[in-house]
Amino acid sequence: MKKFMSEDFLLNGKTAEELFAACKDMPIFDWHCHLSPKEIYENKKPANLYSLWLAADHYKWRALRGAGVNEDLITGKASDYEKFKAWAKIMPYLLANPLYHWTHLELQRYFGIFEPLSEKTADYIWETANAKINEGGFSPRELIGRSNVKTVCTTDDPADSLEYHKLIAGDKSFECRVLPAYRPDKALGMELPAFRPWLADMEKTWGRNIGSYEDLKAALLGRMDFFAEMGCVASDQAFIYVPYERAEGGELEKIFQKGKNGEALSVSELDKYKTELFRFLAAEYKKRGWVMEIHIGVMRNNNAKMFKSIGPDTGFDSISDKEIAHTLSRFLDSLDAENSLPKTVLFTLNPKDNYVLGAMLGNFQSDEAQSKMQFGTAWWFNDNIDGMTEQIKALGNLGVLSKFIGMVTDSRSFLSYPRHEYFRRIVCEFIGQKVENGEYPYDMDVLSKIVRDIAFANADIYFNK
Amino acid sequence: MKKFMSEDFLLNGKTAEELFAACKDMPIFDWHCHLSPKEIYENKKPANLYSLWLAADHYKWRALRGAGVNEDLITGKASDYEKFKAWAKIMPYLLANPLYHWTHLELQRYFGIFEPLSEKTADYIWETANAKINEGGFSPRELIGRSNVKTVCTTDDPADSLEYHKLIAGDKSFECRVLPAYRPDKALGMELPAFRPWLADMEKTWGRNIGSYEDLKAALLGRMDFFAEMGCVASDQAFIYVPYERAEGGELEKIFQKGKNGEALSVSELDKYKTELFRFLAAEYKKRGWVMEIHIGVMRNNNAKMFKSIGPDTGFDSISDKEIAHTLSRFLDSLDAENSLPKTVLFTLNPKDNYVLGAMLGNFQSDEAQSKMQFGTAWWFNDNIDGMTEQIKALGNLGVLSKFIGMVTDSRSFLSYPRHEYFRRIVCEFIGQKVENGEYPYDMDVLSKIVRDIAFANADIYFNK
Amino acid sequence: MKKFMSEDFLLNGKTAEELFAACKDMPIFDWHCHLSPKEIYENKKPANLYSLWLAADHYKWRALRGAGVNEDLITGKASDYEKFKAWAKIMPYLLANPLYHWTHLELQRYFGIFEPLSEKTADYIWETANAKINEGGFSPRELIGRSNVKTVCTTDDPADSLEYHKLIAGDKSFECRVLPAYRPDKALGMELPAFRPWLADMEKTWGRNIGSYEDLKAALLGRMDFFAEMGCVASDQAFIYVPYERAEGGELEKIFQKGKNGEALSVSELDKYKTELFRFLAAEYKKRGWVMEIHIGVMRNNNAKMFKSIGPDTGFDSISDKEIAHTLSRFLDSLDAENSLPKTVLFTLNPKDNYVLGAMLGNFQSDEAQSKMQFGTAWWFNDNIDGMTEQIKALGNLGVLSKFIGMVTDSRSFLSYPRHEYFRRIVCEFIGQKVENGEYPYDMDVLSKIVRDIAFANADIYFNK
Repeated sequence: MKKFMSEDFLLNGKTAEELFAACKDMPIFDWHCHLSPKEIYENKKPANLYSLWLAADHYKWRALRGAGVNEDLITGKASDYEKFKAWAKIMPYLLANPLYHWTHLELQRYFGIFEPLSEKTADYIWETANAKINEGGFSPRELIGRSNVKTVCTTDDPADSLEYHKLIAGDKSFECRVLPAYRPDKALGMELPAFRPWLADMEKTWGRNIGSYEDLKAALLGRMDFFAEMGCVASDQAFIYVPYERAEGGELEKIFQKGKNGEALSVSELDKYKTELFRFLAAEYKKRGWVMEIHIGVMRNNNAKMFKSIGPDTGFDSISDKEIAHTLSRFLDSLDAENSLPKTVLFTLNPKDNYVLGAMLGNFQSDEAQSKMQFGTAWWFNDNIDGMTEQIKALGNLGVLSKFIGMVTDSRSFLSYPRHEYFRRIVCEFIGQKVENGEYPYDMDVLSKIVRDIAFANADIYFNK
Repeated sequence: MKKFMSEDFLLNGKTAEELFAACKDMPIFDWHCHLSPKEIYENKKPANLYSLWLAADHYKWRALRGAGVNEDLITGKASDYEKFKAWAKIMPYLLANPLYHWTHLELQRYFGIFEPLSEKTADYIWETANAKINEGGFSPRELIGRSNVKTVCTTDDPADSLEYHKLIAGDKSFECRVLPAYRPDKALGMELPAFRPWLADMEKTWGRNIGSYEDLKAALLGRMDFFAEMGCVASDQAFIYVPYERAEGGELEKIFQKGKNGEALSVSELDKYKTELFRFLAAEYKKRGWVMEIHIGVMRNNNAKMFKSIGPDTGFDSISDKEIAHTLSRFLDSLDAENSLPKTVLFTLNPKDNYVLGAMLGNFQSDEAQSKMQFGTAWWFNDNIDGMTEQIKALGNLGVLSKFIGMVTDSRSFLSYPRHEYFRRIVCEFIGQKVENGEYPYDMDVLSKIVRDIAFANADIYFNK
Repeated sequence: MKKFMSEDFLLNGKTAEELFAACKDMPIFDWHCHLSPKEIYENKKPANLYSLWLAADHYKWRALRGAGVNEDLITGKASDYEKFKAWAKIMPYLLANPLYHWTHLELQRYFGIFEPLSEKTADYIWETANAKINEGGFSPRELIGRSNVKTVCTTDDPADSLEYHKLIAGDKSFECRVLPAYRPDKALGMELPAFRPWLADMEKTWGRNIGSYEDLKAALLGRMDFFAEMGCVASDQAFIYVPYERAEGGELEKIFQKGKNGEALSVSELDKYKTELFRFLAAEYKKRGWVMEIHIGVMRNNNAKMFKSIGPDTGFDSISDKEIAHTLSRFLDSLDAENSLPKTVLFTLNPKDNYVLGAMLGNFQSDEAQSKMQFGTAWWFNDNIDGMTEQIKALGNLGVLSKFIGMVTDSRSFLSYPRHEYFRRIVCEFIGQKVENGEYPYDMDVLSKIVRDIAFANADIYFNK
């Protein structure tokens, strides 16, 4: 029996251990996350373990609800300590859930606490961790520094002023690059209640009226230029499915006016609008050398009652199962045919589509990059040993795993960086087993290069042009 | 090499063995099956191994057909012995099919026969087993007793008189609780030939005319109250996909009249009818504290020729692949928004949807129960080592595996209870490996509680309110 | 650590090794491939390793593109040596891709080269392999002979004259049977640009005008008779999804006239045409005792720019994700109901449908064959350890794995036969593990029969009637 989450955690065999030794100290290129630039700038010391760990983590909230915990102890009026205690109490029951490992990796790496969390150890851990927090080392920048993060790409609305990015960039004392990433989801999501308020925000930021579809494009372009000035190298967009229904100027203008006026839109009108606006954006990304990330398959805000009560991003999102292959292929091809397809990262939330995306890459590769088309790492509901292993298998079988740009945290928490360690262990175990099993030669020169590349260097090259 | 199906069957490592030792003697809560209350009441001794084992088991029939056996030897005019012999003959070729294990578990546990079944051993096993049957211990109640079953929930139409449930309940000599479960599939399946005959049956049982949609609801409600009196704690319904298309009174009445008159109905009309009737039923389940089971993805009666010749439930059902996530989410949310969502168990026949359902749970959990929303165990075509392991993985990764209500037999056979042992072994092996691999601490207090809970206690609490 | 791709490659444990020893020398029945009968007839010695290995292999091209190699070095104007060198250079980065194993199996088995291919070994391997090619043994017929192939079924258009099949059949010096297989995809693909040119070709081969739907059927039937004369035992057809929408004579005639005139057709018209024409063809296959292969889920020619530049079958195909279960079931049932369902092999390119197809088989089995309905082996994008293992698991769990007709090369390359060895190793490892794990008795009489049957005998019986 292996010791619980010890040095050889997830590594079975000497090769896997050697590989992990070769890549574990590589820096982190966190090219997709939801960290707050404001929090990074303000760099406040957290009040206690609860505020650092539980106050904003909807993954944990979801697990608490699944264990039957009352909402008061999750997002409600209970005290920080009580909420922490509720979390500690259910922890042993999260056997086989990635939160079990994330939790203990975070306790081990940032606090030096190796006891498993449970009702029994809760008070000890609460006190020990809070004491450590008081000693320092737990502000956002300190955590980023301790985690050896070289670059962070946040996720930012085109209407965002990027004021905190400016402030961070101006502060030469902080070595980690913090770059904005352009996320035009609200521009694309014309069917959602957020569209019209967003238009108003955008007019404010952009400083001009957005009265037409052409105005919208101009505003988005203007902001893109500003994002580029601020160091942006990536865009990100989310779709249930990437649509492909073509339309031209006059028709798009009519659809835009309906959307602007809050009129009902047909599926076909929405698909046309999204297809053409996304095509326009993608071609502009390509001109700027940006990477285009596409996150497919999130079904958001499934619980209306809780949405009304505590808003979005609170743990009520889910996995879609729509058909995605055909329109995605035609969308990408329409760009490729015009030499307007940027470097692209395709993510799926539904693991049934691992092989669809893995195969899709191969249709649009080119010598613009080593694996210009990338299969985004297993993310969110798949960010666990099984999900990551399945994504790696699909990519390995269908593409060039060695050129994989690897892990993203996709997180709001400054404590999430051990997920890179988790990922690296899984990659090293996967590759190590192939070597142990005679499926690949034991050639540590090549192998250690491959795991270091996946851990950091591939992303560094891919995003830095 | 491990001995064939010996004590450590499916258990690799000491932890898995210890865990199985901790839970193997837990009783069985068989909360979803198709056992006949009539057979339980009448409690007849079976004629021979064929009648006990093969006469009503469409899983075995299907395997026989796949091996090229003539229908005469399956459901046709061949003798019991000849049919048994045909089964014995193909047995070695069912390598990697769960029937191979079920068959030998049943021979081992009920007959003490440890020889593998084959053409060579057929006569010996036929004689030995029949002799044991003659000695006694193989009547329905004896088999239930020998299997340590505390509660059985059968599957019953609202139009059913439940006369045998009454008779069983009246017989205090039988310790196992036998409860009806409410299955309104025929009420919901307005497009099927069975709908109109069912309406007539329902009028008979209900004792009144069902001339309107309101009458239908009243009748269903009346029967629900009667089922509740008879101890019912669960309802069950099957869908290709759970629809969500809303409608109101007048429209529903028109649809009902068309259905009653056997007129053609559009997909939209059927979806409206099913959405609203199921919403009505679900809210009533909630009022009664019943559990709502939803079985998704069965495509029934695919072979018209065989349906005509030998009827339904004879081995010609299959796995659907429709999109299910979006309407299911909206359906559940429409209930949750009105505080009318009962405890719910979601099953999928298509394993591609394991992660869709696993994630769906999290949208509607609450403190009404520990895992109010449950992911139903791998069932029917997935009721094998791989299918169960995948379901457990998905539930573990996305929810709270420790609160899983576990196995159902879903069977027509009184010999199916060793499938609980099979399931327990798989669960113990899954958890044992995590411990052996350093992914979870070796803490037998917690671990043995978890496996006992999954084996029995979680279901016992969940269904008993 | 196991030695790299040594004798026990993919075999872990004594049972797997014994099983492989029992089946490794079985001949090959290559019942589905894309070998060129012209090349077999002409039997030319290849110019060098490039022309034998890389000149026509779009799997390898795709991998090269994924590694960022310029098209000049793939299908462009670079020299044979430069292209080979580019391939050698990326080889180490294809870790976890089946091409890594195929490449080395081919080097080992045909050239006796055991060094891993890389930039460092490229020149040595180029020279050694070319020297061996010059010594002889690498012409198509020699490779087929060295691979112990007893029968090859090529893939042939009904409009094909089969002249090379005639010539090969006339040459008694070549022992391997080379049979045509009937692939009416161009007749069914009325929506594609190839339809009208194909009609013209067909008129030429058939020697009569095809002015009506009835003429088309007559022509297809005439060619079928000719294919049968030439020894054909199999047909093959590819679908995104198998449609089921019924139509009658007059309607079909109108649709055919529109297609013939190049007019636009609705999805419903196309589905009707394909349903009825395929029904007609299938019934005729049944009369002739042919096997009907259905390949589901290929999305072809996704890259318009590359299609224009280098044509079809150049590495730009992908995996579809349409719903397939319901119409497939009704299509098969419509034939079965009329006793017109031939022996059928169902393939899926999308592994999400493994369980859908595995279950579908069981709806239409009969005593016409041992597993009349077959689940086609993992193919193309799934032709790797994971894909094959998953297909075997699904078939094992849902059907009768022992009666599986096994591997197809599906290849254009005469060097692809070691994929049968790859498959056999995977099957033996899969079964060996079940035995080692106590899931099946160690009975080598039965076990070795099963692996030999899967390797060769099942296909031999299935196709030879």
